[in-house]
Amino acid sequence: MTTPRKLRYAVLGLGRMGQRHALNVAFKTPRAELISVVDPRPISSEWASTSLPPSTKVFQDLKSCLEGSDVDAVLISTETATHAPLTIQALNAGKHVLLEKPISIDVETSRQVVHEAEKFPELKVMVGFSRRFDESYREVKRMIEEGILGQTHLVKSATNDQYDPSGFFVKFATSSGGIFVDCAIHDIDLARWFLLPQSASTTDGMVNKKQVRKVYALGHNVRHPELSRLDDVDNGIGIVEFENDTILVVHANRTMSHGHDCFTEVFGTESKVIVNGNPTLNRIEIRDSHGVRTESTPTYYERFKDAFVTEVNEFTDAVLEGKPVPITLLDSLEAVKVASALQHSYKTGQPVFFGDDGEAILT
Amino acid sequence: MTTPRKLRYAVLGLGRMGQRHALNVAFKTPRAELISVVDPRPISSEWASTSLPPSTKVFQDLKSCLEGSDVDAVLISTETATHAPLTIQALNAGKHVLLEKPISIDVETSRQVVHEAEKFPELKVMVGFSRRFDESYREVKRMIEEGILGQTHLVKSATNDQYDPSGFFVKFATSSGGIFVDCAIHDIDLARWFLLPQSASTTDGMVNKKQVRKVYALGHNVRHPELSRLDDVDNGIGIVEFENDTILVVHANRTMSHGHDCFTEVFGTESKVIVNGNPTLNRIEIRDSHGVRTESTPTYYERFKDAFVTEVNEFTDAVLEGKPVPITLLDSLEAVKVASALQHSYKTGQPVFFGDDGEAILT
Amino acid sequence: MTTPRKLRYAVLGLGRMGQRHALNVAFKTPRAELISVVDPRPISSEWASTSLPPSTKVFQDLKSCLEGSDVDAVLISTETATHAPLTIQALNAGKHVLLEKPISIDVETSRQVVHEAEKFPELKVMVGFSRRFDESYREVKRMIEEGILGQTHLVKSATNDQYDPSGFFVKFATSSGGIFVDCAIHDIDLARWFLLPQSASTTDGMVNKKQVRKVYALGHNVRHPELSRLDDVDNGIGIVEFENDTILVVHANRTMSHGHDCFTEVFGTESKVIVNGNPTLNRIEIRDSHGVRTESTPTYYERFKDAFVTEVNEFTDAVLEGKPVPITLLDSLEAVKVASALQHSYKTGQPVFFGDDGEAILT
Amino acid sequence: MTTPRKLRYAVLGLGRMGQRHALNVAFKTPRAELISVVDPRPISSEWASTSLPPSTKVFQDLKSCLEGSDVDAVLISTETATHAPLTIQALNAGKHVLLEKPISIDVETSRQVVHEAEKFPELKVMVGFSRRFDESYREVKRMIEEGILGQTHLVKSATNDQYDPSGFFVKFATSSGGIFVDCAIHDIDLARWFLLPQSASTTDGMVNKKQVRKVYALGHNVRHPELSRLDDVDNGIGIVEFENDTILVVHANRTMSHGHDCFTEVFGTESKVIVNGNPTLNRIEIRDSHGVRTESTPTYYERFKDAFVTEVNEFTDAVLEGKPVPITLLDSLEAVKVASALQHSYKTGQPVFFGDDGEAILT
Repeated sequence: MTTPRKLRYAVLGLGRMGQRHALNVAFKTPRAELISVVDPRPISSEWASTSLPPSTKVFQDLKSCLEGSDVDAVLISTETATHAPLTIQALNAGKHVLLEKPISIDVETSRQVVHEAEKFPELKVMVGFSRRFDESYREVKRMIEEGILGQTHLVKSATNDQYDPSGFFVKFATSSGGIFVDCAIHDIDLARWFLLPQSASTTDGMVNKKQVRKVYALGHNVRHPELSRLDDVDNGIGIVEFENDTILVVHANRTMSHGHDCFTEVFGTESKVIVNGNPTLNRIEIRDSHGVRTESTPTYYERFKDAFVTEVNEFTDAVLEGKPVPITLLDSLEAVKVASALQHSYKTGQPVFFGDDGEAILT
Repeated sequence: MTTPRKLRYAVLGLGRMGQRHALNVAFKTPRAELISVVDPRPISSEWASTSLPPSTKVFQDLKSCLEGSDVDAVLISTETATHAPLTIQALNAGKHVLLEKPISIDVETSRQVVHEAEKFPELKVMVGFSRRFDESYREVKRMIEEGILGQTHLVKSATNDQYDPSGFFVKFATSSGGIFVDCAIHDIDLARWFLLPQSASTTDGMVNKKQVRKVYALGHNVRHPELSRLDDVDNGIGIVEFENDTILVVHANRTMSHGHDCFTEVFGTESKVIVNGNPTLNRIEIRDSHGVRTESTPTYYERFKDAFVTEVNEFTDAVLEGKPVPITLLDSLEAVKVASALQHSYKTGQPVFFGDDGEAILT
Repeated sequence: MTTPRKLRYAVLGLGRMGQRHALNVAFKTPRAELISVVDPRPISSEWASTSLPPSTKVFQDLKSCLEGSDVDAVLISTETATHAPLTIQALNAGKHVLLEKPISIDVETSRQVVHEAEKFPELKVMVGFSRRFDESYREVKRMIEEGILGQTHLVKSATNDQYDPSGFFVKFATSSGGIFVDCAIHDIDLARWFLLPQSASTTDGMVNKKQVRKVYALGHNVRHPELSRLDDVDNGIGIVEFENDTILVVHANRTMSHGHDCFTEVFGTESKVIVNGNPTLNRIEIRDSHGVRTESTPTYYERFKDAFVTEVNEFTDAVLEGKPVPITLLDSLEAVKVASALQHSYKTGQPVFFGDDGEAILT
Repeated sequence: MTTPRKLRYAVLGLGRMGQRHALNVAFKTPRAELISVVDPRPISSEWASTSLPPSTKVFQDLKSCLEGSDVDAVLISTETATHAPLTIQALNAGKHVLLEKPISIDVETSRQVVHEAEKFPELKVMVGFSRRFDESYREVKRMIEEGILGQTHLVKSATNDQYDPSGFFVKFATSSGGIFVDCAIHDIDLARWFLLPQSASTTDGMVNKKQVRKVYALGHNVRHPELSRLDDVDNGIGIVEFENDTILVVHANRTMSHGHDCFTEVFGTESKVIVNGNPTLNRIEIRDSHGVRTESTPTYYERFKDAFVTEVNEFTDAVLEGKPVPITLLDSLEAVKVASALQHSYKTGQPVFFGDDGEAILT
């Protein structure tokens, strides 16, 4: 906290989440500074002019931004399909990159970004898996490392979104990669963090090492039958059997009535912990004609809003202090590989096995 | 469990609770046998003929019952005002007596029953404070006796009834003795059990020993203004400072929306325990548009239905095996003394002190 | 409740659970009467003579029991392997049969019992899936039938036993059929009850109808490596995809530290309900140096002890009043079929599909 | 958020809480700027030089600070006894004042500060009752204002601190004013906020209006007998009967084993809400040999750390935008009056009544 130097950011994409990132960088992250934002839509310029510090410059595209403002890092919060090309463009312009998950919905494109990043070892690149910055998940990680859980062997996890009658997300379903790539990827990343202590978060050739034995998935549509045309589901179940004999069971859905309900059970030989067993919105309990009840976080954002700030703070610290970033690109690549394999298993109705090269054998 | 001998009961009063007692004695208490019931109302005879074992005799009053059926014990579940005379009548006929709380709403009448009972040392008399037979409260008692709570010093307790728009209970308010005598008496009995380990449940002259230093009460009517005419309230707060420097804070009301909510916090120097923090009806949690919720026990009966069975079982065992009953009459008398003093404090707005003779000094 | 006629029972097997059944029939089930018990072990005779009503006769085998005592029904609580032969023997002697789950660990033997029972339409036979008699699961069933959950589509269920360092259950592992047949069968039965409203609990040829599309299972041993020799695991995950597009995810284990923890999440389009999210032993919450905590039921028995009484009561009522039993034999056969298929999937690492004849295609 | 103008702060007192305030003003409050800190202790200078922005000036006393740095506002976080004189000194130097509760432990001194502040209507003065800035308590306030609770009539509240074997707080007990002034004052402030909707938070002569009818208090020492010499207790119970017939029951203690446990029940005619029924540290639940459990916030700070940031943000906004501060000085004075009366009631063992002038009648 002693250096006055701040990391200068451009935020790319001012959708709902991009606006939150811009506000966080501008107002809530002491060592980060918001220099510019990039979004071609007039409504975004307007929002920026009324909501961000007056000094913030607004650009229509990354190229003009890089030419017209002096930034150290870009935070990419655009549509998934643009994550990879924007990351590569920013790297080649010498900028650090913090990007929203996933790198890409496609393993090969993701792998290409990893290879590109390896050419710029002096630049930091991190995919923001927000849950890794949440204080509760971190405490679980600490407990595991201290041996409090014994040997962790099983993660049962759920990412259950509130049902949206407007079907908003369905519009993005074609480009989101399907429920396993879009939603369950968070649980996959967590499971790897909790179950693969030796290999996760390291960079030494892990990409080629076999981590997963096989995966299996199934699902169904109970409120969004229109997803069937996209080979997608509103309720998906995935099972991942890791090479070290640990297991992930993940359930992702879009159909809850009470709110966004993501919880994770981590089973160790000594104890089990549950994160977010009740997705309470706050510390209030109501006792009325509906019984004894709590209100729930409506979306992932209310659940993880502090984590998004921590994520920027820690990425900023890593750059300013030359430390490794908390999540390696290889970790992010592995998560995409597993999610894609689950998607494939769902389509074929058969398990997908992984080869000794660590790649899914897609038949 | 080895003797075939059963204790033969008459149940007096077939109101809602009396019917439950009759069914319990008839069907759920292996060593008790229902011989006869007493209730003058035709509708009660009718109910008895369709719901009780065909062998059960129905009488209009206790006298005919005692003449017309051969019973060992009576279970008194009539209106409060009749508890004392019926008890005395039964004792003089040589019957054991299990009676609903309280002995009487009036300390002097209660004391008279105690004195009468002393004349029949071979007969068992017990006031059924149902909570003492509840497995959770018993486990707390066990924890206290094992020292797990350290020194218990404070009980905060609530007996909060569901609001009944029909105002059913108001009809009985004149004869119930007021909210402290009618409701808070359970919390008073529990507090004595948990806070006065030496004196409670013993019979050695405790009645004359000063146990209480002072009490204070206040209250208000928020849904039943008609109670004001009776000097009663639908929300009453009472504080009891015992002579051993321990404290009870009790809140009784009739105005909850979600159900019957009675909970007790017991503070010890080493730990605090809460009984029934959430008055769940069953083991179901619902997650719907109202949030994450549980349904509540609507009345005290759903909360304590097993305790009522245990109560009869244990009284029966005490008689058949010549053991002391779990709750002494002196305990019950003390509870009435405290409840009455609270009622007096509410009326006067001033604390009520107790004298060295253990009696409230009413000014 | 008006008829004095009681159903006369023999209880076969006086192991831990058999003793409890004998006591229930003797003391807690008003319309049932314990006439005799059967167990060849001297220690069981001794226990019976001190714990059961003096009138109870003790036999060494079923044959002498049937000859030496006049019973209407037998309750079979012996080792699993004897369930089928004892049931057939009792049926042929004209007795009603209430038996512990499962009929057999083997589908063909189970099917044989079903066929045998069909020869005696006047006799009642029921497998006691205790959870169907639990008040919370029943309330869920009622909510489903009333449409409160909307369309039920997914059940996630866990039967997690407390770790027993003595490895007691391992001794029975060879004859228990494996974790899916021994433990997960309860969850399978529940899932069928909640997800297949049309077909479950009916007897019209269901046995030949395709109800399951495919199942998949995996597992690992984290505390009982000795199970590997038996092709069994101490943690098993099973997935069942029913023909009506609903899904069951079940996790059975033997490795919890805190107690027996069985919970069930039932997902409907309108709401989700959870049964036994916290396996509390009682209504006490403790706040001490370990935080805010509740103690857990150590075994399934503390969780379901009331259900075992209800089970006998309802079977008794069904016999005495000539009503259908709550669980059909075909239901029980289906549960065994699914459990066996899961066991097979675990061994092969591949999904098991079901044919149009409703039978698993084992390859 | 559009103006670049920031409010320039000096933080007075760098004890544990003062350090947190300094860090919040420096790093977490976008429109506030930390200019200087004041603390005479060398260790504080040292801490400031390593933990605060390098530009921060450090002074030994307020006078030099006001001369040597250009600030708009002071945040007073010194020992309670200095709150009043420092506030008056700052006001006379033309500075806005945000000060830790209470104004003073003494009603007359508090009143003097109120009168002094009235001389500087252009300056903002606010006592930081942190709970009013907590999102959960605010949501309760919103629910009350929207009528969701019906008519609020009763608040039961607890401020229960973790037992500190070092007896740290005892050192300050002489100057803290006693448990009701030091701890219960938060609950008193909340109760006024929730129960007196018309009068609270307004400035129109409320100070002279009778708001309280009478108060009563009692208490005991169970772990800190040394407090008896100071006429203080480690467990205090207070009851406040407001003139509008609403009631507060407050329990303050220093003796919990599990952590800082402050919770508030607000009873309305339509529903009851509980804030912080379980003082969870995070969203983790542990299931191990101690049962099913959560860890608790060890101190008030973990519970209210976000509220302290919001408090500075809102005071800053009020100054920069010329809006009223969220808590009036009269509110703070009333809270001290009630707390002092409870302290007096505890000493005398009698209720304390309030006169028509709104002042306690101390006899």
